Amino acid sequence: METTTRLLLPEVEQALREEPDQLVALTEEMHPADLADIAIELEPDLAQQFVRILPVSVGARVLEVCEWDKRAELFHSLAEHDRDWALKITDQMAADDRADLYAELPQPLRTSLLQDIDVEESRDIRQLLSYPEDTAGALLTTDFVALPATTTASEAIGLVRKTAAEMETIYQAYAVDNHGTLLGVVSLRDLVTSPADRTLDEIMNPNIVTINVSADQEEAARLMSKYDLMALPVVDDQHHIAGIITFDDVLDVVEEEATEDVHKLGAIEPLEQSYLQTPFWDLIKARAPWLVALLFGVMATANVLQHFTQHTNLAQMIIWFVPMIISSGGNSGGQSATLTIRAIAVGKLEPRDNLTIIRREVLVGIVLGLIVGSFGALRTVMTASTRIPSMALSIGCSLMAVVTLGALLGCCVPLLLRRLRIDPAVSSTPFIASMCDVCGLIIYFEIAKFFFGS
Amino acid sequence: METTTRLLLPEVEQALREEPDQLVALTEEMHPADLADIAIELEPDLAQQFVRILPVSVGARVLEVCEWDKRAELFHSLAEHDRDWALKITDQMAADDRADLYAELPQPLRTSLLQDIDVEESRDIRQLLSYPEDTAGALLTTDFVALPATTTASEAIGLVRKTAAEMETIYQAYAVDNHGTLLGVVSLRDLVTSPADRTLDEIMNPNIVTINVSADQEEAARLMSKYDLMALPVVDDQHHIAGIITFDDVLDVVEEEATEDVHKLGAIEPLEQSYLQTPFWDLIKARAPWLVALLFGVMATANVLQHFTQHTNLAQMIIWFVPMIISSGGNSGGQSATLTIRAIAVGKLEPRDNLTIIRREVLVGIVLGLIVGSFGALRTVMTASTRIPSMALSIGCSLMAVVTLGALLGCCVPLLLRRLRIDPAVSSTPFIASMCDVCGLIIYFEIAKFFFGS
Repeated sequence: METTTRLLLPEVEQALREEPDQLVALTEEMHPADLADIAIELEPDLAQQFVRILPVSVGARVLEVCEWDKRAELFHSLAEHDRDWALKITDQMAADDRADLYAELPQPLRTSLLQDIDVEESRDIRQLLSYPEDTAGALLTTDFVALPATTTASEAIGLVRKTAAEMETIYQAYAVDNHGTLLGVVSLRDLVTSPADRTLDEIMNPNIVTINVSADQEEAARLMSKYDLMALPVVDDQHHIAGIITFDDVLDVVEEEATEDVHKLGAIEPLEQSYLQTPFWDLIKARAPWLVALLFGVMATANVLQHFTQHTNLAQMIIWFVPMIISSGGNSGGQSATLTIRAIAVGKLEPRDNLTIIRREVLVGIVLGLIVGSFGALRTVMTASTRIPSMALSIGCSLMAVVTLGALLGCCVPLLLRRLRIDPAVSSTPFIASMCDVCGLIIYFEIAKFFFGS
Repeated sequence: METTTRLLLPEVEQALREEPDQLVALTEEMHPADLADIAIELEPDLAQQFVRILPVSVGARVLEVCEWDKRAELFHSLAEHDRDWALKITDQMAADDRADLYAELPQPLRTSLLQDIDVEESRDIRQLLSYPEDTAGALLTTDFVALPATTTASEAIGLVRKTAAEMETIYQAYAVDNHGTLLGVVSLRDLVTSPADRTLDEIMNPNIVTINVSADQEEAARLMSKYDLMALPVVDDQHHIAGIITFDDVLDVVEEEATEDVHKLGAIEPLEQSYLQTPFWDLIKARAPWLVALLFGVMATANVLQHFTQHTNLAQMIIWFVPMIISSGGNSGGQSATLTIRAIAVGKLEPRDNLTIIRREVLVGIVLGLIVGSFGALRTVMTASTRIPSMALSIGCSLMAVVTLGALLGCCVPLLLRRLRIDPAVSSTPFIASMCDVCGLIIYFEIAKFFFGS
């Protein structure tokens, strides 16, 4: 929330309780996003009263930008108090946000509202709700300008002017044939700068970047970022235009996908909502299975330790360095995995780069291993109780080996998962760390056996 | 790279070697972003030839979207071969991309080019280069439409039409006074839909969201995302408009910042370039210091192990479970840290939420601890060699304690760092894991001492 908005909050609360009429003047010049911030902070009954005081068009904007769960809650109680108001507000909302809001409502309310609104609006909402989550279809809005390719520039400007208020963007108009097949795009910039009698098919750009309704939302973000698009037309299999995705929705997608990747890397099932809004038991469900899985993964270390302590006759001091050795391998693996997974996610690593990466990580791992190994060996000889050449050599060589192994596993596991068409982010760094733990332990004991000659 | 572009690559190569004239037809309908993909893939001498065949305006677009390091390389060799061409191309580039390109050139070439271009262009570049990296200033472009507030709508449309080709966006025009002070914003939409004789100060929206030139680029991204802005005006301390940030630049910022956060979480100094483009020794420099620091952090575990094995008389089997116990604490801490750090980064956790989060993580930690502890204890009693009640109790209780501790440390450390105004992402999960290692070891041994009664 902006600081200025926060400062206004007590004033709004007081006005709501004492002189609601004052509010109109107070909120007139505020941006709907700031009004939404206020609505979220107010107690439920005050929030309801607050939104109902706003003009319907402003209320619609506020509901568009409000956070999802808060919005459904707010709208639900508003609809129960004043059904007419609810219908008026949804009528004024952008088509995509309106469909999102309907998706969040409890089934009975949704069904009853859908019966009361006009047929076209209801069909539009049902259509938008039918696209699966995280697809391009789920992001699109139907508020866009489609015009027959035979329209002239001046007719087009006239039509755009008339429909401007209802459209999400008027900066791009789409030329279509009689069947709704997308033929090309014309920017308002082209319309304004073209001779008035030119027709759209003369002005339009027919080399148009499009996305299929069923494509992943990440692909939509990638295309819009690559081609610097303000709006991306979404088409069905017959190349009929279904709607457009606008730049503001894609900004949210990029942030959402990054958060998802971060969560997976941290061994958390991605949360649907923000941390504070996620219910307690959902938080447990997103974390417990991974912790238990990782526990089972690392349990093998107990067997390895049991085996080596029972069947070999190693100096006790070797045990002291076990956590140090294995965590170094895990850290190195984590670095390598983080770099590889993120590079895949942002589309900077293609499958043909696989060998380059592996070769690179082995070399990086060796150099890192030499550095870390030297520090480890140095630490060992500098401590009175462990000042034994065999010990220092064991530590140094083991650190070198586990750090190199970590770098190798850290890049190979994600690359392998991608080849198997599994999202590489699920090979989260803790998993690679568990693998490094078990392998590192074996390496360490074998090296120690060699140097201590047992 | 798009598949269709990749398929064209051999054809382009062949045409360049045999019949360069064919290329014009081949590339005419391609998007500059795809042409840039091709230029990057070609061998240096072919790439140079390829770009010089394109019309100057297309060449300028290609250089605008080309990846940074490739672009400087390409432009450098082009400028050496055909200086006139180089000057023509930079003249046609967008002001912000042009300044970025100059920033990437070697000093002597930059200085000599700056002497040959016209005074205004050179001043513009110098001004843009003066803004520090990662600030709003560094993102802005000076290709925007500023008009006196007394202009009428129809005059404004005329002016916009005339300058359209040079401007980055004509969808927003900015109304200014005689001193360049920003007064308000008018969208092309408003201009097109207003009566022709209205002046800008009657149409404009004076409640305008702006950002200071020295503000962080993340703040620019946050504002544009929150207020769904296509362009964000950047002002100096006197509220003079310095330029605008456009939505396409902000998409890159959001992705760049997410990558930076992911890297920090994985204990890697954020890379300036993509993984494959980062030179080998830069990769070492970004990783070695962290690995060594983490090694020193976890070295204390050797002292703890030495202390307990030398001064207490614990059963040997206790040692077997050390890696399992400490890695569970680290995993739990990692989850909690990941959630907290990401929630802070996307602005979903305000300082006043601190207590809520800590209380929550303690409760989550206890539940997770109970779950993980039960599995651990079960595993212990199910294994023949460790079927001892004291052992199972030690494992179960220790897992519970370290998982809870991990959840607590994982949220407290980032919150504390934020309070100290240090970026919470640097308390990367491996650091928290190291802290959990040392504390977890002590907890485990103390609990084992209690149950084994030694």
